[in-house]
Amino acid sequence: MGAEAKARRAAIIGTGLIGQGWAIVFARMGWEVRLHDVNAAMLAEARGLILQQLRELEAQGLLKDAEAIGGRVHVAGSLADALRGASYIQENSPENVEIKRALFAELDAAAEPDAIIGSSTSSIPASEFTGHLAGRHRCLVAHPVNPPYLIPVVELCPAPWTSPQAVEFARAVMAGIGQKPVLVRREIEGFILNRLQGALLHEAFRLASAGIASAEDIDTTVKDGLGLRWSFMGPFETIDLNAPGGIADYCARYGGLYQSIGATQGEPAAWDGALVDALAEERRGLLPREDLAKRRFWRDEKLMRLMRHKQDNGDNNG
Amino acid sequence: MGAEAKARRAAIIGTGLIGQGWAIVFARMGWEVRLHDVNAAMLAEARGLILQQLRELEAQGLLKDAEAIGGRVHVAGSLADALRGASYIQENSPENVEIKRALFAELDAAAEPDAIIGSSTSSIPASEFTGHLAGRHRCLVAHPVNPPYLIPVVELCPAPWTSPQAVEFARAVMAGIGQKPVLVRREIEGFILNRLQGALLHEAFRLASAGIASAEDIDTTVKDGLGLRWSFMGPFETIDLNAPGGIADYCARYGGLYQSIGATQGEPAAWDGALVDALAEERRGLLPREDLAKRRFWRDEKLMRLMRHKQDNGDNNG
Repeated sequence: MGAEAKARRAAIIGTGLIGQGWAIVFARMGWEVRLHDVNAAMLAEARGLILQQLRELEAQGLLKDAEAIGGRVHVAGSLADALRGASYIQENSPENVEIKRALFAELDAAAEPDAIIGSSTSSIPASEFTGHLAGRHRCLVAHPVNPPYLIPVVELCPAPWTSPQAVEFARAVMAGIGQKPVLVRREIEGFILNRLQGALLHEAFRLASAGIASAEDIDTTVKDGLGLRWSFMGPFETIDLNAPGGIADYCARYGGLYQSIGATQGEPAAWDGALVDALAEERRGLLPREDLAKRRFWRDEKLMRLMRHKQDNGDNNG
Repeated sequence: MGAEAKARRAAIIGTGLIGQGWAIVFARMGWEVRLHDVNAAMLAEARGLILQQLRELEAQGLLKDAEAIGGRVHVAGSLADALRGASYIQENSPENVEIKRALFAELDAAAEPDAIIGSSTSSIPASEFTGHLAGRHRCLVAHPVNPPYLIPVVELCPAPWTSPQAVEFARAVMAGIGQKPVLVRREIEGFILNRLQGALLHEAFRLASAGIASAEDIDTTVKDGLGLRWSFMGPFETIDLNAPGGIADYCARYGGLYQSIGATQGEPAAWDGALVDALAEERRGLLPREDLAKRRFWRDEKLMRLMRHKQDNGDNNG
């Protein structure tokens, strides 16, 4: 039953950016990985792209022997071939409930009897595409952040019929490959990460919309303020340490202020029209559209250096 | 008129933790600093505590020659002595509007004619304690995050009568000493930082209250997910880079999802009763109350190492 008793072999179904990222995450921790995609052209280039990313990670000191790791990633000849012997299957098809319903039927029919099947969906609860399956108890959402080899959190969200054993196995697999699994106990739109991000974004949009601050100054407030602590402590630990008696003391001292602020944060601004035009104009003034791609490389390099820094500091929750 | 034409001499009024932090920030960039506090005992120990923190920063490689920097910090013999020749005054008295009204009257009466006076208040708009002053045009809020020598953002929030020249001078001073000033264009409760933090906290409390996730898993979602990018990019830049066509494209693609999520985020949970009891119980299980102080040292060391990492990477917006 334990993760260790099963084969360390994963099937990655769907080999776009997210699927490639998953392949790296599994392979660098010693798993054998088989790739499959219905899009033959995408599948054909996937392994090369994975090797390229592995070499970049090696160049940044984030892993050793990219070639050996890449050697554990194989292109499967068919879906059945990809699933054969796999104890864990990660699905990365487009965000479309019909596609996922059909694909999960195929996966459930062909997978090993005790394999667990996770979906990378960021927005569709597993109950919407697994209810019709004989093996629905072994299906759940395992939502990564892109790129998963640099941002370790994985949101595990079971459907009402997902078995506790499947959840536990998925959690053990994710922890075993060095990711940080969190449990979304009940299905909820946006899971945890995008709900937290959305709450902060809605306030950022409201402040910009009301003319309280520029987008640039709001970004500065996060990257040179809030985001520093949040890169190694969560929001609860942050406030727990910010009052002499811990979180209960913090709530007693500042709860009134935050309730008063919260009472003015109920209404989201619409993300369209003049507000979005103004935000886009400000952003394009700071970063011209033709520089977006270059800036994404900058971001990924920053992330790689940050992760290297966290590794060097033994940063696993201190 | 420019910051460079005025004396690089600051008066720090109120020498608790925040005042000490300000003294370090000014002195390490070459300013002469004079300290004053109505509490003689607090004033007497302030310089020693500042030196201790400077040595710790030197040990972490964050500055050189702590002794020379400390040599620029002086205990003033009186309020008038502290203010004499100071071009910038930072007030750090308790969060009490009556205390601040009285203190600002003293400061305005004794300060040099062209000195600018900033308040460290985190929750009281300047209009509540400066309206009665002849020199109200030169007063504003300059709200730091603790400790300001590790977390550089400073929220500048003028009262309606603060002159643009005073705001501009305060901004130049803050930028000149290596802080990251942001402008809160109109007075609003919580300014920017605590409003953003509050929005995220309210969603964290809601998720915990609804039993969707543990406090520990919510913290993991931030520190191993959202917080990584936010430590070097703000929320707007993050979404600007997360869609091929930038922020407008992001809003078009995901605005519907976030609006739908936002519609369920209107009601803050009350920060009291069973919810806070449960959160406190979980936190105390992870970190016993007697370990809170030790964990604060851990946090400050993490912050110091992170800032060192950012310095090494030339991290001034890349």
